[in-house]
Amino acid sequence: MNHRLDKIRGLLRTHDAGAALVTFLPDVRWACGFTGSNGVLLVLPDAAHFVTDGRYRTQAEAEVRGATVHVPGYDLFGHVAGAGLFGAAQTTLVQAEHLTLAGMGRLEGLFPGMAWRPVERMLAAFVAEKEPEEIARIRRAQRITDEVFAEILGVIRPGMTEREVAAEIVYGHLRRGAERMAFDPIVAAGPNGALPHARPTDRKIGVGDLVVLDFGGVRDGYASDMTRTVAVGEPGAEARKVYDVVREAQSRALEAARAGMPSKALDAVAREVIAAAGYGDCFTHSLGHGIGLQTHEWPPVSFRTDEPLPENAAVTIEPGVYLPGRFGVRIEDIVVLRADGCENLTGAPKDLIVL
Amino acid sequence: MNHRLDKIRGLLRTHDAGAALVTFLPDVRWACGFTGSNGVLLVLPDAAHFVTDGRYRTQAEAEVRGATVHVPGYDLFGHVAGAGLFGAAQTTLVQAEHLTLAGMGRLEGLFPGMAWRPVERMLAAFVAEKEPEEIARIRRAQRITDEVFAEILGVIRPGMTEREVAAEIVYGHLRRGAERMAFDPIVAAGPNGALPHARPTDRKIGVGDLVVLDFGGVRDGYASDMTRTVAVGEPGAEARKVYDVVREAQSRALEAARAGMPSKALDAVAREVIAAAGYGDCFTHSLGHGIGLQTHEWPPVSFRTDEPLPENAAVTIEPGVYLPGRFGVRIEDIVVLRADGCENLTGAPKDLIVL
Repeated sequence: MNHRLDKIRGLLRTHDAGAALVTFLPDVRWACGFTGSNGVLLVLPDAAHFVTDGRYRTQAEAEVRGATVHVPGYDLFGHVAGAGLFGAAQTTLVQAEHLTLAGMGRLEGLFPGMAWRPVERMLAAFVAEKEPEEIARIRRAQRITDEVFAEILGVIRPGMTEREVAAEIVYGHLRRGAERMAFDPIVAAGPNGALPHARPTDRKIGVGDLVVLDFGGVRDGYASDMTRTVAVGEPGAEARKVYDVVREAQSRALEAARAGMPSKALDAVAREVIAAAGYGDCFTHSLGHGIGLQTHEWPPVSFRTDEPLPENAAVTIEPGVYLPGRFGVRIEDIVVLRADGCENLTGAPKDLIVL
Repeated sequence: MNHRLDKIRGLLRTHDAGAALVTFLPDVRWACGFTGSNGVLLVLPDAAHFVTDGRYRTQAEAEVRGATVHVPGYDLFGHVAGAGLFGAAQTTLVQAEHLTLAGMGRLEGLFPGMAWRPVERMLAAFVAEKEPEEIARIRRAQRITDEVFAEILGVIRPGMTEREVAAEIVYGHLRRGAERMAFDPIVAAGPNGALPHARPTDRKIGVGDLVVLDFGGVRDGYASDMTRTVAVGEPGAEARKVYDVVREAQSRALEAARAGMPSKALDAVAREVIAAAGYGDCFTHSLGHGIGLQTHEWPPVSFRTDEPLPENAAVTIEPGVYLPGRFGVRIEDIVVLRADGCENLTGAPKDLIVL
């Protein structure tokens, strides 16, 4: 029994299709548990087949739930064809954002009679609704990130480069059992902090700099993601003012966040606080994003969509204000959306820390 | 002037097309220099346009060579349509292995009159032929990796876990200025070494273990990649014998490697040494792969293809022997293929090291 495969079978009925081919590896993992780097999952009304290559035979047999494991070699699609795994299916759903033209062309060549139906966001809504065990994993990953933040506060000092701080952040995660980083850490001091996607440079942290620290790790497959902005020495009145505005914007959003509200309505709660303080043009990105097996996944928390936010989704809440050439402030937590509010998975403090 | 864009223009003539749309980010970087995470490049016979979002305005203006920079917001394809950037083109080449069905559908909706021609490996042969500056970057990345290997030899001791060694490897790269790892390090001790794609576990390294260490970093965008197998304490006669076989297989392949030879012929040089020693069934993967802006790129060095190896390509040479449940040995260098031989970019020693 695998209730996630049953959700996919529900899609077959909705779309009047005989099969669904899952090719995006994070979705393959979600659906059947396989954690390797090569494999496809075929879901039929009364069966499921997982196909991988010889490197992953033992691993697939240990991990895969609810699907028959096939290990034909490297030609996975070829095996699906040759072994007749599609059974009676005449229409097969494929993942529109993940299957490439080359992959589609290969499938069409192998199965000339099949009708292929590309579906956008095929599993996104299922993947977004986190189960308790998934939330526990995000929480464990975030606990590592919280600990690393506490450690890093004792390490950062004027004259260290952004890259040196980033190296300590990575090392701290791996020593605590993170499998890898969820993304390359952002360590952005002074004017570099005004670039929301800055990469660590050889810039030395100076006295009075605000430093934006955005990082997360992966534990048991699930990602953490947190941003804190700290000051190295007194940052000055405007930096303190902007910090307070961003913190207030985030607090209001955390108070307002709940499942079912339109995505843009939650984004607007934070955006209005920032606009009222006169920094509306300086919050240049969305409020947040879904997180789980991927660091960025559906749903966005954004002014660009009014879709309702799903229950039990884990999303980031991360308003920011960026003053080009001067500094930036961003504060980010992960929350789980519930019908009556949200649960914050992030433990690191948010008062402005002056090192 | 950008001679890489001129190579793409040569493709337009070959395919009788009016435009080429480059959407795969490593190829975008290769073609025009942009290093960010969102952007598309449109190449026309007498112009080129690079389109990105507002986060990357300053960076794109500083980095992009030979193309006009456009920063319309997040809807990049929409801007290409609205701004009429395709000019007179009636046929446009797209990247078959990288454009998704969703991307293709969106383009078809925006440009109903355009003929789209998916091309497989559109830029692969261009990207494979490395220029001296690119080889210098791979060499710098590999020098960091060589240094980390030397450092790690002083760190590994019985009782350390695979994960702890992996953390030191990552930290060593980042402290030396690697931007990130090229891939998650493999540290596989004892029987774990028999899994070519093992992930570091909490297994403690024991006395007598062979330990497979496979790791690389990224510097200035280019990847390194090296494998060494070391013994922690005396590993025993068969381990030493297998080590010698793999080392001999790699030596012979390094002697034979040159541009123009069929890929499978080079793979066979190493495979025959291993088969002659009685371990033919235990070398379960290809001999190597191209490397550069991607850790794994075209061409493969493999029994699966007889295409000639291109001149000036950087490829790995990495034979291995895996004895399930017991141990594995792999030795890997990066070489640049020349008409009359190859140039080895890897400096770490290859005599069996017993710690």
